[in-house]
Amino acid sequence: MSGEIVTAAALVIGNEILSGRTQDANLAYLGQQLGLLGIRLREARVVADVEADIVAAVNELRARYDYVFTTGGIGPTHDDITSDCVAKAFGVPLIRHPEAERRLRAHYEPDKINEARLRMANTPEGAALIDNPVSVAPGYRMENVFVLAGVPAIMRAMFDSLKGQLTGGAPVLAVTVPAYLAEGTIAKDLGALQDRYADIEIGSYPFFRLGRFGTSLVLRGTNQARLDRAAEELRQLVRTLGAEPLDREPD
Amino acid sequence: MSGEIVTAAALVIGNEILSGRTQDANLAYLGQQLGLLGIRLREARVVADVEADIVAAVNELRARYDYVFTTGGIGPTHDDITSDCVAKAFGVPLIRHPEAERRLRAHYEPDKINEARLRMANTPEGAALIDNPVSVAPGYRMENVFVLAGVPAIMRAMFDSLKGQLTGGAPVLAVTVPAYLAEGTIAKDLGALQDRYADIEIGSYPFFRLGRFGTSLVLRGTNQARLDRAAEELRQLVRTLGAEPLDREPD
Repeated sequence: MSGEIVTAAALVIGNEILSGRTQDANLAYLGQQLGLLGIRLREARVVADVEADIVAAVNELRARYDYVFTTGGIGPTHDDITSDCVAKAFGVPLIRHPEAERRLRAHYEPDKINEARLRMANTPEGAALIDNPVSVAPGYRMENVFVLAGVPAIMRAMFDSLKGQLTGGAPVLAVTVPAYLAEGTIAKDLGALQDRYADIEIGSYPFFRLGRFGTSLVLRGTNQARLDRAAEELRQLVRTLGAEPLDREPD
Repeated sequence: MSGEIVTAAALVIGNEILSGRTQDANLAYLGQQLGLLGIRLREARVVADVEADIVAAVNELRARYDYVFTTGGIGPTHDDITSDCVAKAFGVPLIRHPEAERRLRAHYEPDKINEARLRMANTPEGAALIDNPVSVAPGYRMENVFVLAGVPAIMRAMFDSLKGQLTGGAPVLAVTVPAYLAEGTIAKDLGALQDRYADIEIGSYPFFRLGRFGTSLVLRGTNQARLDRAAEELRQLVRTLGAEPLDREPD
């Protein structure tokens, strides 16, 4: 890859993801959005609402990657413990953030604001707020860690609010070459193509549509001209093997 | 919880999950199925097709949890490196498994079997095969690590093949009490209920349907009578707060 590689990790917090009650939708979104900004999502972890697990994961990930994005656990109920854990991970007190409290008091009717809702104004000391245009209660940033809501609509709005703060490398571009061709048929030549294009990441993903097996071949890199050249070689290879490259993946 | 707690972790392997190209569907399935068997999925990790990352994750997770399930990276192409990594994690050679090779040769026409497809017969030495009734190429078990395909239909068939080998604790039962009630309104009393039912895990998950905010309150535990008692208290609490418990979550 050309230029500096900027990396990120996601930390998805919540028993409901691990029990299978809730299908996570934030990871794929973060992966796509970060890619557009030239940031590689390199790892994701899903942990339960358990303090020791969250603290350990925050500290491991923030040491290893340029950016960390957490989702979940910042609501008003007893199982929302992310802010306590992030404060512990950074070794700072949990405080009531004055501006967050102001926003919550401005949003809720006086008879609706209560101690549980005000917990959503608690942040580690030194946090910089991230706007929440959906439901007011903010996320926040601590150094390279961004603490976001778990509800996808809110997480996405928060990501829009913060993305101006991110410094990425060259955007990651992708070209997909789908074909009704079995993976095992093209595997050897595909490996040889990968060896010749070390700056491009080539992935192979089987699909099954309308009773036929096919493969989506995905080339990812930062140099459009190199990608186009590799893709053209790949299309030729597919034809040599008796299949026709498709314009796009079958629905 | 009563009885012994049996734990598991999932390791999702593949660049396509992290780039957001592919939405993972295996984690929620594993969480649900393991819960039915009385096994708690306690952590999940998603790692890229990078040897050092996969080896480290396999070794950390197999030391920490009773069972580990990996998905992805066992196909025929150059980016399928899971078996190499699991062999390295266990410190054993990668071998061509005779029975796996026999199955592949029986399945493919003689002119279709090639070195790339035979890579799918490579396993760490000492692996016990897991049947693949969908597309033949097997998964396998190494001690407490189960190596499964990434394609959801194949992963599920492999899980069915192996689940008889798992020893769980008491099945995890769940009762859900949804209501059109804001989380912040019930948060304080819900925390008090959690304090009185330490053997039950109480989760609170907001939803938004037809222009109204609501909350699904989920009680999870292994003792049906205790769950029913806690759920009845919770329904009374919801009514006290001016809402009506729903029979099920709105679609």
